[in-house]
Amino acid sequence: LDAGRRDDIVEHLEAAHAAEVADLLESLPPDQRSGLWDVIPAEQEGEILSHLRDEARASIIEEMDDVELVAAARSMAPEDLAEVIEELPDERHTALLQTLDGDHRQRLQAVLTFGQNTAGRLMSTDVLSVRPDVSVAVVLRWLRRHQVLPPHTDTLMVIDEQGHYLATLGVDRLLTSDPQAIVGQLMRQDTVVVRADMSEHEVAALFERRDLISLPVLDQEDHLLGRITIDDVVDIIREESDKVLLNRAGLDEDEDLFAPVMPSARRRGLWLGINLMTVFLAAAVIGRFEAVLDQIVALAVLLPIVASMGGIAGSQTLTLMIRGLALDQIANANVRWLIGKEIAVGALNGIAWAVVVAFVAYLWFGSTGISVTIASAMILNLLIAALAGVLIPLGLKRVGIDPALSGAVILTTVTDIVGFLSFLGLATVILL
Amino acid sequence: LDAGRRDDIVEHLEAAHAAEVADLLESLPPDQRSGLWDVIPAEQEGEILSHLRDEARASIIEEMDDVELVAAARSMAPEDLAEVIEELPDERHTALLQTLDGDHRQRLQAVLTFGQNTAGRLMSTDVLSVRPDVSVAVVLRWLRRHQVLPPHTDTLMVIDEQGHYLATLGVDRLLTSDPQAIVGQLMRQDTVVVRADMSEHEVAALFERRDLISLPVLDQEDHLLGRITIDDVVDIIREESDKVLLNRAGLDEDEDLFAPVMPSARRRGLWLGINLMTVFLAAAVIGRFEAVLDQIVALAVLLPIVASMGGIAGSQTLTLMIRGLALDQIANANVRWLIGKEIAVGALNGIAWAVVVAFVAYLWFGSTGISVTIASAMILNLLIAALAGVLIPLGLKRVGIDPALSGAVILTTVTDIVGFLSFLGLATVILL
Repeated sequence: LDAGRRDDIVEHLEAAHAAEVADLLESLPPDQRSGLWDVIPAEQEGEILSHLRDEARASIIEEMDDVELVAAARSMAPEDLAEVIEELPDERHTALLQTLDGDHRQRLQAVLTFGQNTAGRLMSTDVLSVRPDVSVAVVLRWLRRHQVLPPHTDTLMVIDEQGHYLATLGVDRLLTSDPQAIVGQLMRQDTVVVRADMSEHEVAALFERRDLISLPVLDQEDHLLGRITIDDVVDIIREESDKVLLNRAGLDEDEDLFAPVMPSARRRGLWLGINLMTVFLAAAVIGRFEAVLDQIVALAVLLPIVASMGGIAGSQTLTLMIRGLALDQIANANVRWLIGKEIAVGALNGIAWAVVVAFVAYLWFGSTGISVTIASAMILNLLIAALAGVLIPLGLKRVGIDPALSGAVILTTVTDIVGFLSFLGLATVILL
Repeated sequence: LDAGRRDDIVEHLEAAHAAEVADLLESLPPDQRSGLWDVIPAEQEGEILSHLRDEARASIIEEMDDVELVAAARSMAPEDLAEVIEELPDERHTALLQTLDGDHRQRLQAVLTFGQNTAGRLMSTDVLSVRPDVSVAVVLRWLRRHQVLPPHTDTLMVIDEQGHYLATLGVDRLLTSDPQAIVGQLMRQDTVVVRADMSEHEVAALFERRDLISLPVLDQEDHLLGRITIDDVVDIIREESDKVLLNRAGLDEDEDLFAPVMPSARRRGLWLGINLMTVFLAAAVIGRFEAVLDQIVALAVLLPIVASMGGIAGSQTLTLMIRGLALDQIANANVRWLIGKEIAVGALNGIAWAVVVAFVAYLWFGSTGISVTIASAMILNLLIAALAGVLIPLGLKRVGIDPALSGAVILTTVTDIVGFLSFLGLATVILL
């Protein structure tokens, strides 16, 4: 990014789509990121900001002064600006709100009245609507005067005089119908609608299942408020998938790979601390069996095996459950079958690998007692792991905690403790 | 699913979208799944099959006889049928191909010439194309004769007499332009195109970055072959996210939560076996230090701590790398910065938590030597974990292995071995 290539870069940026520039910014270490940001033309900044992930965006906004931020905000759609403004520190939030002009501010505040992660936040208010009693020819004439349609307009909304939503009229019907036909005869009343308070997750599931491009958003009295388009839904699906992947490692879904060292270390440190507590718990379990460990050192050598196998088997069940819950595939009606199945799978694999472990342990230490101990402990731990893999995510969901976030750490705590307890406990009974 | 409610169910099924029926089938244990399948009207079967995940689909096709399968195949689009037919056992594959009528078979074989997971497999050949020298009025008249447009038609393709792709003509331009305007003046030549051999992953990234609804698919000579629409891209994004989530636990992305016990146990058993080998490796490392364990039993108690903390820290780095690689954010230019950053994060957290661990260990066992040993081992292991978290996914990618599949198991093998080796090795030096 040396000065001589600046013009080159600006030229490239002008040709690129805002989302591509956002991707590029997210792939740069802090210094280069702000270097690139400085050469981005002011009129593109708003659009690019709306494509960045929260954390990368925060890193850039921190370096923008208020004048630059206001200029960028002016070019942003209210629904994008709402997302940005909520992440700002209080004083910048207020300052920015005050400098927006009346109309823009009102539209922004209307978006902000909807709860986070709801359809109301997602929708665009840029909608074309028509009355049911006009002819196709009239609609076509009106569209020709419009010149530019909102992006991804696959349907027009049909509304009555009071703004109540009635139905959708597909653009394809407009193109293929007789110009004399009346909208009311062509419109489709069976299309699904979205309520403004519907969650993003439900909206995405609806689009995905029905292969939709856009849906109308209504309030409780059926007034048409706006529309949601598939490009926003794609972003939600991507966010949900990032969330499942990153939360599992105790990371926020917006975690910025190229964040500076200190904030990264602080955020990750918390998760390490939680893990440290759970592993101390496991160590305390081992500590209860110092007597048997002191006499049979082979037990210390084999110690990780039972716990580790339980952790792996349990995390397989847990992972399937997390996906099943995300896809709304799990209900009371099938949980009992699932528990039975997972326990049977755990028993089969427990027995199969217990035989292998017992054999290897016998070759290694030549003690039938040790072999019987480790084999029994392993079967027991894989059964508990299967049960825990089903019940932990269900329990977490019931109390309103996302299983993708803390399911794995609770599960491995259970499988570690049960693993150590069963192995060393059985050893005390069988070998001492 | 008792017989009395059969009519009710059929009525519900007729109102539901095929993807919703597919979701329902995937949420049912084997018995109920085939029970429901039996009451699904034959004419819906093809569409529903194309919405099922591989494994759930295989479980249903296994129970269908050849007559039923052929009937379902007849109603499927070639690109969907291609996916189904490739999963069939050889003899059913051939039998099915032979019973298809000539045209359908030819179209299917055309799809099968493209490599798996390429744009050619994904595209639909149901495309509307126009010549550049006709007027909007002519196009509109032609569309009115057509009556039904292919789903998600947001653009028409403009081609020359030889079938070479020239540009796209947005449906919005058709609606807003003067009927006398000529297609050649309205078409957009700057749209991106997809080559038939482009990978699904690249296609999805293109759609996601540019907020697209459809793109033309061309061969190497620029002939228009078909088009890809956003609904297929949504499926790819979902599949990729499933893959990252499930592969991490050694599961296939099509793994069926409601599969019968035996095949589930077999598939998962393989991964448990791989894990068993790695944990025996770790146990062998501990086995080298029987002497020191025999003398100081406290070491056995503290044994899991260093390895576990290394595993957690490393998996945080690994997870961020896997996402970064999936989003194409990582290149040679920023790897060195990343390694530096991750090592710094590892060092900071290593030192911080080493102090805590040393303090707790001192309170527990009252030995400065043990405290110094575990603290040093932990700092060392977190440094190695950071390095491994960056280098393992890069190395796997270079040799063509998906880091999401085997990255975690390799990483924890490294952090376990380094954890046990450093802790027990330092203990031998410091304490004996």
